[in-house]
Parts: sequence; C-alpha cells; structure tokens
Amino acid sequence: MDATSLRAATTALRDSAPLVHCLTNTVVQTITANALLAVGAAPAMVDEPAEAGEFAAVASAVLVNVGTVQQRTAEAMRIAARTASEVGTPWVLDPVAVGGLTFRTELAADLVQLRPAVVRGNASEVLALAGAGKGGRGVDSTATPEDALEAAGELARRTGGVVAVSGPVDVVTDGERVVRVGGGSPLLTRTTGAGCALGAVTAAYVAAAGDVMLGTVAAHAHVALAAEAAARIADGPGTFAVRWIDALDAVDGDALVRAQLS
Amino acid sequence: MDATSLRAATTALRDSAPLVHCLTNTVVQTITANALLAVGAAPAMVDEPAEAGEFAAVASAVLVNVGTVQQRTAEAMRIAARTASEVGTPWVLDPVAVGGLTFRTELAADLVQLRPAVVRGNASEVLALAGAGKGGRGVDSTATPEDALEAAGELARRTGGVVAVSGPVDVVTDGERVVRVGGGSPLLTRTTGAGCALGAVTAAYVAAAGDVMLGTVAAHAHVALAAEAAARIADGPGTFAVRWIDALDAVDGDALVRAQLS
Amino acid sequence: MDATSLRAATTALRDSAPLVHCLTNTVVQTITANALLAVGAAPAMVDEPAEAGEFAAVASAVLVNVGTVQQRTAEAMRIAARTASEVGTPWVLDPVAVGGLTFRTELAADLVQLRPAVVRGNASEVLALAGAGKGGRGVDSTATPEDALEAAGELARRTGGVVAVSGPVDVVTDGERVVRVGGGSPLLTRTTGAGCALGAVTAAYVAAAGDVMLGTVAAHAHVALAAEAAARIADGPGTFAVRWIDALDAVDGDALVRAQLS
Repeated sequence: MDATSLRAATTALRDSAPLVHCLTNTVVQTITANALLAVGAAPAMVDEPAEAGEFAAVASAVLVNVGTVQQRTAEAMRIAARTASEVGTPWVLDPVAVGGLTFRTELAADLVQLRPAVVRGNASEVLALAGAGKGGRGVDSTATPEDALEAAGELARRTGGVVAVSGPVDVVTDGERVVRVGGGSPLLTRTTGAGCALGAVTAAYVAAAGDVMLGTVAAHAHVALAAEAAARIADGPGTFAVRWIDALDAVDGDALVRAQLS
Repeated sequence: MDATSLRAATTALRDSAPLVHCLTNTVVQTITANALLAVGAAPAMVDEPAEAGEFAAVASAVLVNVGTVQQRTAEAMRIAARTASEVGTPWVLDPVAVGGLTFRTELAADLVQLRPAVVRGNASEVLALAGAGKGGRGVDSTATPEDALEAAGELARRTGGVVAVSGPVDVVTDGERVVRVGGGSPLLTRTTGAGCALGAVTAAYVAAAGDVMLGTVAAHAHVALAAEAAARIADGPGTFAVRWIDALDAVDGDALVRAQLS
Repeated sequence: MDATSLRAATTALRDSAPLVHCLTNTVVQTITANALLAVGAAPAMVDEPAEAGEFAAVASAVLVNVGTVQQRTAEAMRIAARTASEVGTPWVLDPVAVGGLTFRTELAADLVQLRPAVVRGNASEVLALAGAGKGGRGVDSTATPEDALEAAGELARRTGGVVAVSGPVDVVTDGERVVRVGGGSPLLTRTTGAGCALGAVTAAYVAAAGDVMLGTVAAHAHVALAAEAAARIADGPGTFAVRWIDALDAVDGDALVRAQLS
C-alpha cells in the first residue's frame, strides 16, 4: 500500500461521496450514519424487503450487518446482497456474533455464498464464518486476529474478496497478501458501534477506491488514525465517541499516509 | 411574523410541554427525542399498530417520518395519521427519500390525503410528493428550496396546511404567504437526523403555538439559531451535534426574534 | 447498605464484565449499550424470537424494556423472560408507559408473573403495574416515588424481588427494607434513555453482586453519582449526556460509597 494510492483513495471518497446502502443493526445506525457523513460518504438505511432491492441497485456500495437481525431484515439482507452481487456493486458483510447464535449463523453462511467484496469482523466471528470456530459471546472476541489469519485467508480465497479481522492490530487479507493496520485506541471497544461503523466506512472506501484491498486498508487506517486523535483529547468513552466523529472528518490524505501499516 | 408572536410561541411551547407522538425512522429516534426534550417538549416513540391510534388520540401532535418505514410501521403511520386527522390533532409528514423508492412514495401519496398540518422535507422530496419530480438519492436533495417553491405552494393549498422546504435558506409557505428562514449552518447536513428532528420540533411548535404557519416558522428559526450557536464552538460534526442539543435548550424567546426571517 | 458491600459490588462488576442481554426500545439502545460498556459490563441487543431464548440462556442478566414494544419483540420478551426465569438468570423489567397503553399493559402484566428480579420504573408505571394506578403520559410520571412506595412494596412481595422507583430521590424496596438513593441531577430527565440505561445497569449490577437488593442500590448510586459529576461540567443536556458516559466509567468503588443513601 503506497502513499500515493492511499491519498488517492481518500480523495476519491471525498470527490465521489458514495451512497452507502446500510442494512445494519439498530444499536449502531446513528453512529454508522455519522461516521459515513464524517468521512465524506452519503449514508442511507433501508431494510424493508419491498425497498431493499430497488435501493441496492442504485447504491454505490451495500453494508450488511447482522447485529440485530430479525426475520424481516434477514429477508431484506438476502435481497440486497443478491442485487449487489448481480449488478456488480461491492458489498460488505459484518457477521456480528455469528457462531454464537443459530439463526444468524445460518443466514451468514447463506450470505457469504453471494461473494461479499469484504467480510469484516472480529476473530471469533471470522473463525465461525470460515467454519473453524464456535464464535465468541456477543460482540466480544475470545481469539486474536492472528489466530484467525489462516481462516481469513481461506475465506477470502473462497469469496474472491477481502477479509478484515479487527483487533489491537487489524489484519486485512485477500488470501494472498496480508496487510496489518496498527494504531487505533482501546477506546474503540468501549464505544458501541465503532467496529460496525468501520464496516460501513469500508464499504464507502471500496466503492470510491475501485480496488477492494486498497479500499479496505484505507478504511481501517482512516478509522485507526481518527481514534488516535480522539483518544488524545477524550476524557472517557463518551467524549471519545464524539471526538472520533470530528476526527473522521479531519483525517485527510496527508494524514492517512501516516497510518501504521505493515 | 412579528417578534411578539415568535416570543409567544416559544413561551407557549415551554409552558405546555406538548406530547409529541413520533413515528420516525430508527436512525434518528435518539436525536429526535433529545431535540424535543431540549426545546421543551415531551417525546414518545410509539410505532406498533396496536398502540398507534390509542396514543395519537391523546398526543398534542404527531410526527410521521418515513425514513426507515416498513410494512408494520407503515400500518401504524396510517392509523396514527388517520386518528390525528379525525380528532383534529396537528400532524407533520416528513417524506424522507420519497420519489426515489416505490413503497414509501405510494405510502406518502396516501398519507398526504389525510391533510398533514405540515409537510417538511428537502426540495427533491417536496417536488416528488407534489408530483412534480422524481426525488433525489436517499436523503440528499438535488434541487433547491426555490426550485420547489411553486410545487410547495400547490401542495399547501391541496392539504390546507403548510409546506416547509429545508435548504441553505428554508422556505415555508401556506400557499399564499412565503416566509424564508436563513442562518443555520452547513453542519446540520453533516449530522444525521438534524432535519428529521426539525420535523419533530415543528410538530411541537405547531401544537403549542396554535397557528400552523407561526409554529412552523418558529421551529425553523429555533433550529437555525441553535445551529449557528453550536457551529461557533464546534470542532467538527461530532461536537456540533452535541452542542446543537445544548443550544436548542438555550435558545429562548429573546433569541428567537433575532432569526433571519424574510 | 454498608460501604464494604457497595465497594465489592463495583469490583465484582468490573471483574466479571457480565453479559447483559437487552430487549429494549430502539430510542435508547445506543445510550444503553454505551452506559453498560462504561460501567464495565458487556451489552448485547438480541430481540428476534428465534434467538431470544438461545441468548437469554447464556447471558449473565436480561433486561426487558417495553418502550417501543411491538408484536415481534413482545414475543421475544416473553421467550427471554421465561428462559431467564427457568434457568435462574436475574432479569429486570422496565414497564415504560405501562398503564397508558393497553397492548403493553397486558404484556407487562403477563411478564411480571415470570418474577423479574427487579422492576424499575417511574412512580406512575409502578403504580400501574401494581394495579394501583392508571399510569402517566408517555414516559413522564405524574406521581412521586413516595406515592408509589406502598404499591412498590406490595409488588416486590408478589415477585419475590426488588422494585425500584425512579425520581428526584429513588426508592428501592424488597417489600421489607426500603433504601432511598438521593443525589443525581435533573438533567437525567432531559436526556432520552438515562432511565432506561439505569435499568440495564441494574441488570449488570445484580448479576455481578449476587444480591438483588445490593445490586439494585449500587446501580442507582452509580448512575446518580455519575450524573452529579456530569452536571458539574455540562453546558446543557447535550454535553451532559456525553459527560455522563465518561462519568459512569470514572465512578469506582471509592466514589460509590459517597452516594446519598438513606
């Protein structure tokens, strides 16, 4: 990931303001929309089956996050993912708590067949989705990204896309290359929805960058750098969440190239 | 809109603390409730069909916002709007993304027959609802309020109410008079739900003011003045959203008369 | 409630990080999750009937809040409460607006038969649930906690648990003992979801403390102390909500013993 490409990804995001169709959990819709607005994208939450296909067809990217999935939204997610897959729109799958709950685990297993451009989750979720683990409890991960590296690579080769495993150091792989994104802040895990918002920001970057691996790495770098800036001035998890939105807005291409990539 | 009337509207709002029954989208429920509390109203979100009529019948005002509408909440919206219409309670229609999606466009076309006291939207949405345009993409507007002025006036004459078109300068019309509300801040469009919360604040003001045109203008002025105050001390869109709630609480009748009305 | 027990409750909460399964209203999911994270618990929102029993069976505690209940989530609430009751997991019932609306009032009457460890509400809600009143309007209470004391005690004896009535001074009773928790801030009522989040924090504390009365009092004390700290530096209800999350994180066992208990 060279500096020129990263800079170009951020510029492309802000120039194109991609419309990100989010089918995401109700706990994090607000922070997800605000994070997308802050990085320069245009969010829209549409999860009624009667509208999901119509909207996915015109969106720049689609996010499917199963955090509070129910029968109705599961149907909308199937429609949106299928539509995105058919029309060639990149879509991101965030398998929240997959492995620990049967209904969503079966749904995610179906969705992954529709070849998401990116799967983004924690190590337990990625292990479960790849068939190599039983998942964690709720949104916590009891494994590390490095534990999930092999499963992530296998999953990426299966989908033909990229798999990103979040943790103290994020691991991003397309099944051949591996890029690690360091930095960030532990406060990201003390704020509900930061990881979920990262999935949405990834969708926006992938749409704008025109390269799935580059877009995914740039999104993770952007979120990590903003977290570092916010943590420096936050007094706790409440002020951190607010300052993180400010910082997502403030990070630009010049900042992005200072990300801790390896 | 003379200063005495505007002052009286704010005083009436704070004295009466109108109960605003909100059927609104899940992305913005929190900021909507907080904005209503900050201006002095009492919010309540009830969108189950089994409860919507019972609650609309006792509320001071009703807000119907179709942002994340689904089959169930569409039914609740029909019931609440019909009840409000029958018992003479003012209700506000916010036609989010109408024009761009078939399901909600058909719903909004039905709802508008129930004569909302106020329709509040962006120019694309108002043009679509009035039958004069195809809507924008998601919540963005590709037209300006002035572009929508004629359609807004026609729509207001049809409903017998007021139509407010949000933009850099808001346009409020009852089909005869036109009042423009300037000021505000571009940060309102970088924060999810500010426009949707304005719809709710409008419902509260209309209930308290006892005059639809006055209440609608006062609500837009209140929100714009609070946005200006928040923008002066915000470091970005995250801190802006928080400071805007503080400022909605701080704006009083003396402040309101300094609004940029024309 | 001696200082040693209160200190131990906070220590136990932070050492065990109880997993709190929340079936709560969509307006307050975000602040509820953030409040749980801030006090040291692990939140998870799961309200699909197909998942509610599976998840309640592994959670440390369950919260049922009927604020925006609908047919689907009512079914999930019945399943989760029944499961918690059967496996002996403590669960908290927050009867938002019960008394004022038929559908939820009937649901809450059924749920209370499943013996919640704690019922937490305002005075109108507790009076209505105990069969002694008609409830308030929405989430406001038109009665005081002291008005509801007798009904709260009777309800606690009926459930075999604890009933907590929120107000300027909270009243907590198990039907024999009564503990009052003072302090706090009026700004708690100007921020949507603070009371609902208190219900979730109570679930976390009860799971960690291993004693329902102690856990409930500790939770109320923790929330009140955090509110006082936040109110000292807040400029309005917006900054208060953010600072309150910071303060929930900052309150520790040493702080907790300074709560105004009587």
